[in-house]
Amino acid sequence: MERISADVAIIGAGPAGMFAVFECGMLKMSCVLIDALDELGGQCAALYPEKPIYDIPAHPAIEGGELITKLEEQIAPFPCAKLLGRQVTGLSGEAGNFTLTTSAGDEIQAKAIILAAGAGAFGPNRPPLEGLESFEATGAVRYYVKKRENLRGKRVVIAGGGDSAVDWALALQGIAASIAVVHRRPKFRAAPESTAQLDTLAMAGKVEMVIPYQLHALHGAAGALEEVEVADLDGATRHLPADVLLPFFGLAMELGPIADWGLGLEKSHVAVTPPTMETSLPGVFAVGDICTYPGKLKLILQGFAEGAVAAHAIYNIVNPDKALHFEYSTTKGVPG
Amino acid sequence: MERISADVAIIGAGPAGMFAVFECGMLKMSCVLIDALDELGGQCAALYPEKPIYDIPAHPAIEGGELITKLEEQIAPFPCAKLLGRQVTGLSGEAGNFTLTTSAGDEIQAKAIILAAGAGAFGPNRPPLEGLESFEATGAVRYYVKKRENLRGKRVVIAGGGDSAVDWALALQGIAASIAVVHRRPKFRAAPESTAQLDTLAMAGKVEMVIPYQLHALHGAAGALEEVEVADLDGATRHLPADVLLPFFGLAMELGPIADWGLGLEKSHVAVTPPTMETSLPGVFAVGDICTYPGKLKLILQGFAEGAVAAHAIYNIVNPDKALHFEYSTTKGVPG
Repeated sequence: MERISADVAIIGAGPAGMFAVFECGMLKMSCVLIDALDELGGQCAALYPEKPIYDIPAHPAIEGGELITKLEEQIAPFPCAKLLGRQVTGLSGEAGNFTLTTSAGDEIQAKAIILAAGAGAFGPNRPPLEGLESFEATGAVRYYVKKRENLRGKRVVIAGGGDSAVDWALALQGIAASIAVVHRRPKFRAAPESTAQLDTLAMAGKVEMVIPYQLHALHGAAGALEEVEVADLDGATRHLPADVLLPFFGLAMELGPIADWGLGLEKSHVAVTPPTMETSLPGVFAVGDICTYPGKLKLILQGFAEGAVAAHAIYNIVNPDKALHFEYSTTKGVPG
Repeated sequence: MERISADVAIIGAGPAGMFAVFECGMLKMSCVLIDALDELGGQCAALYPEKPIYDIPAHPAIEGGELITKLEEQIAPFPCAKLLGRQVTGLSGEAGNFTLTTSAGDEIQAKAIILAAGAGAFGPNRPPLEGLESFEATGAVRYYVKKRENLRGKRVVIAGGGDSAVDWALALQGIAASIAVVHRRPKFRAAPESTAQLDTLAMAGKVEMVIPYQLHALHGAAGALEEVEVADLDGATRHLPADVLLPFFGLAMELGPIADWGLGLEKSHVAVTPPTMETSLPGVFAVGDICTYPGKLKLILQGFAEGAVAAHAIYNIVNPDKALHFEYSTTKGVPG
């Protein structure tokens, strides 16, 4: 339970939130960074630390974990309290003088807020199956694969027809003991190349295509999965032997208490004004995957660039009497 | 003299133009990259290869030259012809079917154009001094410092009152034999910290402050500089011994033949619509330092992000009948 005061409170410690600390720091604004997870890095660190990312500029390939390590190093010179493992619950006050409270009982004073909750605000869509929780608790049903090795020798059932489903069916080749893909339509929404690769594997008997079927029930005991029962459109069922079920039905926004702040939404994302990244609530900004505006792309790169825009706009809130002296980083360097 | 056809012609091979090749490549569009310089990298490679940059995300510090090397590696997998050492001269046609010509007589067919001319489109403001060209030709008057070492032991006169002037007065300490700073006003526009450092050096006799004076004449022979003559507001003159003059009077846009294309301008930058980065000319896009829109920041990072936006918008021109299947780079990887 902390009482902290900073220029800017940043909610969400994924890449976009971390880089927002850097941009605020370059403009001499102090930050506090809050995240529900226990470590920095958001889904990059938590969900795909070993997965290479190819579209970070000047990093031909970088794994999620390494990206976060580099960002940590980059923000290290700047003043930034980190409040991890807690959710933001309450907001009061106004631009220039906000108070945030958290699930850990913290009270944070800040002049402006950057919402960078990213994919952390988007929970997986969970299939409506009886007894699901007990299988989730043991990891027999999981929505993310943190380490492929953890699935070695397992019988895996994958459900869904998008990129994640197809991608993981390909990526678990040679690791899982068996792979079945359940999809309720014959056509996949995944990238054409990946779908073609999946078809090739299916023809070779390396993936079982269970189509058109949908999830119907889970069988097992004490959280240990034994079979996934699927049903076709006529209600006829099949039983697929399984140790692990990976349902990939997309993400749904779960803003939690932040949903009550009255932020303007658009297609279940937080709407912002591009020149500043400000939401409908003055003094509250949003960057990264949680925000939307015309032309928005859900790329980590855009989250970085949006952080720069938000920081420059916030400078005027934190320093109402000072004009911003715009400088290149090569001129001013970073603090020792 | 080449005849080349590509989906996208990118004018300007600085960081923003190079990364636009990557973004186009990820969307399976071929590129041709054109630059007036003989090498890739724009001013990063040409003007400050050894100067560290601190605000590239996930690069706590990277020198200009290294940034370009990384970007070259990142675009290597993608089809991209490079036409260097030549200027784009003519444009005809329309979105979906443009023809560009260059000073080398090339003829380039492209469906869309990205203008990424960056600082290359901005030439230095040159002081109106008699015989200036002959001193420029020998490097006795220069507007950029490519390698500090080249100024070792030289008597340097710096003119100007902004960041570049102050920055270089600091950076040449211990390298130049002597440093004088000529500014026509007592107050500097540079960052307050840097100006304070300059004052300290001046007090210690390590920099001579020639204030308020302005450049009046250059003395020397055959391009070898001997003295810079300066005048105060009353016309009284002083002679400063000098081997090199560095005038830092800012940059002025020099679009060259592109100025005749009829692109909408705003504050002498090319105006674009943020959701697409399209200029007033359909099918012609602009990214990086040359473009402007509400909230525009002149950061390399924004140039990268703008390239992603432009590439996604151009996809619809290059593939009028296909809907874009949006993917994360972790899903699709890169070719080869």
